[in-house]
Amino acid sequence: MTDSLAELQAAVDAFVDERDWVQFHAPKNLAMGVAVEAAEIMEHFLWCSTEASFALDERKRAEVADEIGDVLIFLLELGRALDIDIVAAARDKLVANREKYPVEKAKGRATKYVDFD
Amino acid sequence: MTDSLAELQAAVDAFVDERDWVQFHAPKNLAMGVAVEAAEIMEHFLWCSTEASFALDERKRAEVADEIGDVLIFLLELGRALDIDIVAAARDKLVANREKYPVEKAKGRATKYVDFD
Amino acid sequence: MTDSLAELQAAVDAFVDERDWVQFHAPKNLAMGVAVEAAEIMEHFLWCSTEASFALDERKRAEVADEIGDVLIFLLELGRALDIDIVAAARDKLVANREKYPVEKAKGRATKYVDFD
Amino acid sequence: MTDSLAELQAAVDAFVDERDWVQFHAPKNLAMGVAVEAAEIMEHFLWCSTEASFALDERKRAEVADEIGDVLIFLLELGRALDIDIVAAARDKLVANREKYPVEKAKGRATKYVDFD
Repeated sequence: MTDSLAELQAAVDAFVDERDWVQFHAPKNLAMGVAVEAAEIMEHFLWCSTEASFALDERKRAEVADEIGDVLIFLLELGRALDIDIVAAARDKLVANREKYPVEKAKGRATKYVDFD
Repeated sequence: MTDSLAELQAAVDAFVDERDWVQFHAPKNLAMGVAVEAAEIMEHFLWCSTEASFALDERKRAEVADEIGDVLIFLLELGRALDIDIVAAARDKLVANREKYPVEKAKGRATKYVDFD
Repeated sequence: MTDSLAELQAAVDAFVDERDWVQFHAPKNLAMGVAVEAAEIMEHFLWCSTEASFALDERKRAEVADEIGDVLIFLLELGRALDIDIVAAARDKLVANREKYPVEKAKGRATKYVDFD
Repeated sequence: MTDSLAELQAAVDAFVDERDWVQFHAPKNLAMGVAVEAAEIMEHFLWCSTEASFALDERKRAEVADEIGDVLIFLLELGRALDIDIVAAARDKLVANREKYPVEKAKGRATKYVDFD
């Protein structure tokens, strides 16, 4: 897998700056953008069963990759607009999730932590 | 900014595997997860103006970072389930966007490419 | 089922007006509201299989009903802000869908019309 | 405004039944459908300011009406699949909201009830 996110961030920033689009990139709009593109990923899975969702044909898989790319691009721009390091944010969240979902309670269960007994 | 995504991916994978959660991580479910978390980012911006969305107070900013982390975690797991390199997907998308939005047509305009004259 | 939507619309309008909330109810914000609440419906179905999604326990069913109510409330307010009759909009869409999905092509298939052969 | 929802529900049900689509209409899928169409409404407002979102041109307004129709159709089908009366759900929610947002606290403020002082 591609490791460097900094290079991608720089490329996305340059793309936006060259087009003078920072004026449109308010966090509110970028948050909507993330959600719009997330829904476009989801649309590809609307009618398939959970099992079938693993086995996309090549065309569908390319389309899903395309939408995943869009989500990541918007997420990077949102992080930039709010000065949030998205990788650090995910890492912090993972730390919190380890607390909320200890292995002995969460193993093999899709229960939300608020419903643990 | 944190550069290495590979390290985060490994940590997320380990978190999921330790809890035996791969069984729930069908692409259909993960796509829903990305969308659910994207909406949770968005909820923080629901009633504020686009201008005010830049100036979050510290509590809100931390909450938004939290949700951004969730989106990235789900996105990484979706990429894993479908064997899609999410950074490569974003880079490819950027190449396509440069074609669709040439600087001379797109500069300073938020028009969708299908509506270019 | 409850037939009258006009009564509900009047109640929602009164609720909003009494609180002087029209100032926040720009179509952009209301569209976000519909999407945020739609995601909250979806969250209840995140980890269950399609089959299990029919058989919610009573608590979950009440929570889903609650979120469905939110989506409809935002949708009515969006219709009001844009002067769009949401029932007429759905009826018109159904007419268009009958054209796009003729019974002989669509019967028993979840294929999108653009992919009909 | 069109008052009768029962007639629309019957028309949507007939549309679905004629195509033998009930098999695809698991609540999980319909919840995704609501969210996907909600995002399509939202896409029309992605880059506009909150003020400009009131003043759509005729083409955009028709497109938004189209997506609103889709959300309502999916919402009706979701209600049907779960035997939830969507209008009653909204009415019940409004009762709850009157409690959570008393006029004297909520008037002119977009604050979430959990943040009332």
